[in-house]
Amino acid sequence: MKALVYHGPGKKAWEERPMPKLEDEKDAIVKVLKTTICGTDLHIMKGDVPEVTDGRVLGHEGVGVVEKTGKSVGNFKPGDRVLISCITSDGTCEFCKKGMYSHCVNGGWILGHTIDGTQAEYVRIPYADTSLYAIPEGLNEDAFVMLSDIFPTAFECGVLNGRIKPGDTVAIVGAGPVGLASLLTAKFYSPSRIMMIDVDEGRLAVARELGATDVVNSAEGPAIEKVMELTGERGVDVAIEAVGSPVTFGICEAIVAAGGHIANIGVFGQSVDLHMERLWSHNITLTTRLVDTVTTPMLLKSVESGTLHPERLVTHHFALSDIMDAYETFSNARKEKALKVVLENR
Amino acid sequence: MKALVYHGPGKKAWEERPMPKLEDEKDAIVKVLKTTICGTDLHIMKGDVPEVTDGRVLGHEGVGVVEKTGKSVGNFKPGDRVLISCITSDGTCEFCKKGMYSHCVNGGWILGHTIDGTQAEYVRIPYADTSLYAIPEGLNEDAFVMLSDIFPTAFECGVLNGRIKPGDTVAIVGAGPVGLASLLTAKFYSPSRIMMIDVDEGRLAVARELGATDVVNSAEGPAIEKVMELTGERGVDVAIEAVGSPVTFGICEAIVAAGGHIANIGVFGQSVDLHMERLWSHNITLTTRLVDTVTTPMLLKSVESGTLHPERLVTHHFALSDIMDAYETFSNARKEKALKVVLENR
Amino acid sequence: MKALVYHGPGKKAWEERPMPKLEDEKDAIVKVLKTTICGTDLHIMKGDVPEVTDGRVLGHEGVGVVEKTGKSVGNFKPGDRVLISCITSDGTCEFCKKGMYSHCVNGGWILGHTIDGTQAEYVRIPYADTSLYAIPEGLNEDAFVMLSDIFPTAFECGVLNGRIKPGDTVAIVGAGPVGLASLLTAKFYSPSRIMMIDVDEGRLAVARELGATDVVNSAEGPAIEKVMELTGERGVDVAIEAVGSPVTFGICEAIVAAGGHIANIGVFGQSVDLHMERLWSHNITLTTRLVDTVTTPMLLKSVESGTLHPERLVTHHFALSDIMDAYETFSNARKEKALKVVLENR
Amino acid sequence: MKALVYHGPGKKAWEERPMPKLEDEKDAIVKVLKTTICGTDLHIMKGDVPEVTDGRVLGHEGVGVVEKTGKSVGNFKPGDRVLISCITSDGTCEFCKKGMYSHCVNGGWILGHTIDGTQAEYVRIPYADTSLYAIPEGLNEDAFVMLSDIFPTAFECGVLNGRIKPGDTVAIVGAGPVGLASLLTAKFYSPSRIMMIDVDEGRLAVARELGATDVVNSAEGPAIEKVMELTGERGVDVAIEAVGSPVTFGICEAIVAAGGHIANIGVFGQSVDLHMERLWSHNITLTTRLVDTVTTPMLLKSVESGTLHPERLVTHHFALSDIMDAYETFSNARKEKALKVVLENR
Repeated sequence: MKALVYHGPGKKAWEERPMPKLEDEKDAIVKVLKTTICGTDLHIMKGDVPEVTDGRVLGHEGVGVVEKTGKSVGNFKPGDRVLISCITSDGTCEFCKKGMYSHCVNGGWILGHTIDGTQAEYVRIPYADTSLYAIPEGLNEDAFVMLSDIFPTAFECGVLNGRIKPGDTVAIVGAGPVGLASLLTAKFYSPSRIMMIDVDEGRLAVARELGATDVVNSAEGPAIEKVMELTGERGVDVAIEAVGSPVTFGICEAIVAAGGHIANIGVFGQSVDLHMERLWSHNITLTTRLVDTVTTPMLLKSVESGTLHPERLVTHHFALSDIMDAYETFSNARKEKALKVVLENR
Repeated sequence: MKALVYHGPGKKAWEERPMPKLEDEKDAIVKVLKTTICGTDLHIMKGDVPEVTDGRVLGHEGVGVVEKTGKSVGNFKPGDRVLISCITSDGTCEFCKKGMYSHCVNGGWILGHTIDGTQAEYVRIPYADTSLYAIPEGLNEDAFVMLSDIFPTAFECGVLNGRIKPGDTVAIVGAGPVGLASLLTAKFYSPSRIMMIDVDEGRLAVARELGATDVVNSAEGPAIEKVMELTGERGVDVAIEAVGSPVTFGICEAIVAAGGHIANIGVFGQSVDLHMERLWSHNITLTTRLVDTVTTPMLLKSVESGTLHPERLVTHHFALSDIMDAYETFSNARKEKALKVVLENR
Repeated sequence: MKALVYHGPGKKAWEERPMPKLEDEKDAIVKVLKTTICGTDLHIMKGDVPEVTDGRVLGHEGVGVVEKTGKSVGNFKPGDRVLISCITSDGTCEFCKKGMYSHCVNGGWILGHTIDGTQAEYVRIPYADTSLYAIPEGLNEDAFVMLSDIFPTAFECGVLNGRIKPGDTVAIVGAGPVGLASLLTAKFYSPSRIMMIDVDEGRLAVARELGATDVVNSAEGPAIEKVMELTGERGVDVAIEAVGSPVTFGICEAIVAAGGHIANIGVFGQSVDLHMERLWSHNITLTTRLVDTVTTPMLLKSVESGTLHPERLVTHHFALSDIMDAYETFSNARKEKALKVVLENR
Repeated sequence: MKALVYHGPGKKAWEERPMPKLEDEKDAIVKVLKTTICGTDLHIMKGDVPEVTDGRVLGHEGVGVVEKTGKSVGNFKPGDRVLISCITSDGTCEFCKKGMYSHCVNGGWILGHTIDGTQAEYVRIPYADTSLYAIPEGLNEDAFVMLSDIFPTAFECGVLNGRIKPGDTVAIVGAGPVGLASLLTAKFYSPSRIMMIDVDEGRLAVARELGATDVVNSAEGPAIEKVMELTGERGVDVAIEAVGSPVTFGICEAIVAAGGHIANIGVFGQSVDLHMERLWSHNITLTTRLVDTVTTPMLLKSVESGTLHPERLVTHHFALSDIMDAYETFSNARKEKALKVVLENR
């Protein structure tokens, strides 16, 4: 089969690889129908994720069809259409039992990281019963590809951790794919205002279309002052960090109202300055989380019922065999006006 | 001033009454601009609420303008536009401190019950600071009249107590005003399905317009079987009782899924049969509540931001002086296709 | 091997049975070290549980040593000391994923019910990874036997569902083993008062020893009046039903304070009268639950740290081969002053 | 009357002051029976709290007897014994209505800060109905003095915000009075282990007496390694910061387990380094809070029922007129082996 293989920083190739095989009773082999590229894949390509070694097939998202199953797999059989979760859960460890699949002692984020991933024609999925989800036929499969990672990430780390309530004022810092997915899922809880903060006018225009009530271009002036002005100097009930930099984190610290929440989604490579001299008496809650994907069943139901349209973030389609081009487009997201790209194994 | 006065079962009159006066430092006198009639007022007229005695001015809902305030009132001054809460809260008792205003030792439901109410040109509001809410000008005041009672009731007793979550399947038994207000506020939490059950085709048609995904006419066949069929024999996550009868309560008991919630809103005059022989192992939660109106500020924000449109339940308008006609219409709600009537003190 | 076998209502025997065998990759065979008899076993013997058929080995509680494991079992190996949960969880179904093991589509309460149970020298445990718990050596194993069923039942259905908080006033109706286990685990949350209500003076004396602050003998006078008097007519924050009869349920309804909780543990064979004409405005929460055993890890930690002493409920010890005598004693619990009996496979 | 008056950094005097008078209908004048000195008072004396100006009577804790009440005070009358809350709540603002009294727009921490305080023979208490609490006679009043500030602070900011659950492993960094109050109130939730970390052996010895299961002297070696070793390299479920320095905050960051909580109590004068490069994927929750004193009624009940003994932190007694000596002792707390000092208006 063909797969996108990492060969060290800056080097990757679409090349022939042996078919994956069942290695454990709980494994399934899935034929990939659609996959996508994550910002994390770009980080891997830069060499920022040293656990990923030469020869690794990348990718941790996708939908497919079950090809084969191990003897202990009870929920799936060959021919079933499935969503592949970016997080592998063994279903039996201390962490999985409490719904913290992200820290599963045998799983967690392993696909396209420490084992071969989904940017390939076939992929082996360990602990299939607890790491795959059945999907219905007849719906737009682009929507389901978005449920592998980006939507549970935005929803769990941003919306749920931020404890958004009806009537709340919410600010999302960063209007990239995960920020926009936060916007779409924040609406599940009917806040009165959702402000979107970014430096890119194009992305802010998308945010408006997707339902942001206010947008703040932080390239054009101080974002903090603007948000405080918009909130009558009160600040926001929930500030979602969807970038991962000290500057954007600092915006969140400055705009959160007394009693409010800062919900971090961003991946950080360095520490930040936490202004405890101001925050100690501000009654705030700050959360971090690696996505657990425990909300995948709920997100699936919301897609099926038409409450959620994740496919609205898909801007480009490619054949899976053109994945090298897709990487090129996604790497130049702003210029290409790309949000998410979908790769189809036609 | 003129007021609608109760004179014992079946007897009421629109008659001259002395202007209300400040009786305590915490009182305010409010000029009523708009008020409405509640199903409870009809119960009073039937003699079902013996605490209401001859001579009582009815009504516990409305918006108005502050006319006078006692010396201890700090949040309001003459000229302020206000929403009158159906629940009076002294703000200092054990129950108010924990947000259970319904059981306030000096307040609770007293307006149009144990003290004179709002179906009058003027009304005295005790504990004004904690029983009135400022409203903005320039918005549809019909919406705010609906926030005095029916919307917090539907939202707190039905939606919040039912713990509706995104993706849930919800059934609301009873498509009268409070059931429809439950429908509108259930949508705050983006359930995937909201089923509405009633015997009246007209009300079910309204329910569909307001967003019900399924309607079940329980006059046309067994509602329980129909709901079970619609849910693949699984039942609903949340069943809201918005009628107040053993039969409708029985429907809720029968359709709630394992792990689900029954949230009661209905006013009951008799006991019901609780099928513990089935429910003991069904992991359900059943709640009751007299509205606390703690969510009034949130509902106000949602109206202001355009997230909620309570005025959609207003079907009829009358001059306050025509309140006898309004009672007539509201008493024949089904025939008149009436949901809520608004009375204007023109 | 030897086992206690059910042969229809009123008939049981300690007899030779074939050794259980692995039937699935996820099974384990456990040598039983200690087991106990549950009130439910007595119900089975009366013929109240028709799913239990002639030839069934009874028992759903115990500790043991793993003898053999299927190929997919990852958490246990032969020689491991384990606690057997009364609830079997497949770890992969919709219910298990949300922590509602009681309704597991492949498990739930099956041991000694629809498959052979633990009142035997050996037992087959399906889904071993998610249905067994490792226990440390060197501690009193009687304590762990109590964690198979009675303590998670009391804690989850009574204490957690009752949402007991520090400072609360709690009443537990029924001072049998599960009521007393509720008392011991209620103390985890430091209520200010725990009242115990029963008709048996001996059990009330035990309740006092175990920490009840008040006891009410309901055989000696009306319990409701007594509890209301003890609470200054306010009622209790949490009423735990640990009997399963309309009368004791009625006590709970009558003594729960406005805003309070009724947490049902009792197994019911009939419906009860729910006084909605009083409760509709009383802001109460009523819960039912078949134990999920999701708190077993926490209870284990509490036993290990010495915070909890479940063995205090063990009043009698028997050799496993004397189980017919043990049933006799347990069936005459009040006369024998028996709470829980432990059977040892010496 | 006599009072302890602040005259700028380093200067204070026990001097004659005019009797406080009712200034508002909601005020009460309270004769102080017992008061204490807070670490915050020492900060004021150093000049760290610039809002405190020359001439201010210090003190925000105490019990007393109501001397006079304004016309709107309904909950108290002259002669009532009361606990004075360190936080003044107007009971009617947006923040008070949601239980966030700390940010009350007319109150919050004002006693001994922006208005005259309790280190005096008499004190004026604004919003008496919502800022005083009735206390029973006949109990140790030292206990109640501890409920003005230190116990609600420890309980709300440390224990409740840390969401301590039965079975948890808790670490408290700082064994001063507020750390020890955290220890005593952490026990409300029956964690399996409570580790206490401090540099002072004397305070660690007290911690042991009060129920710490482990103590770590951070002066004698690296505390982080020790805690990790004690927890099998897993870290703690809840880390409570009870000091207020970058170093102790850093310990909390380092020892919190995946999925754990950092609950800050410490007052900070500077920012800290938040290691987001590690914490972003660690699923933690970090909270800050100025005490709201919403739990005062619950703490009172716990003292009355004998569940809580706050007086165990009182090490020294003085006559109120000897308050200059008491400050001396409290300023040299470690040397004097002082925790809390109680001043009696004999």
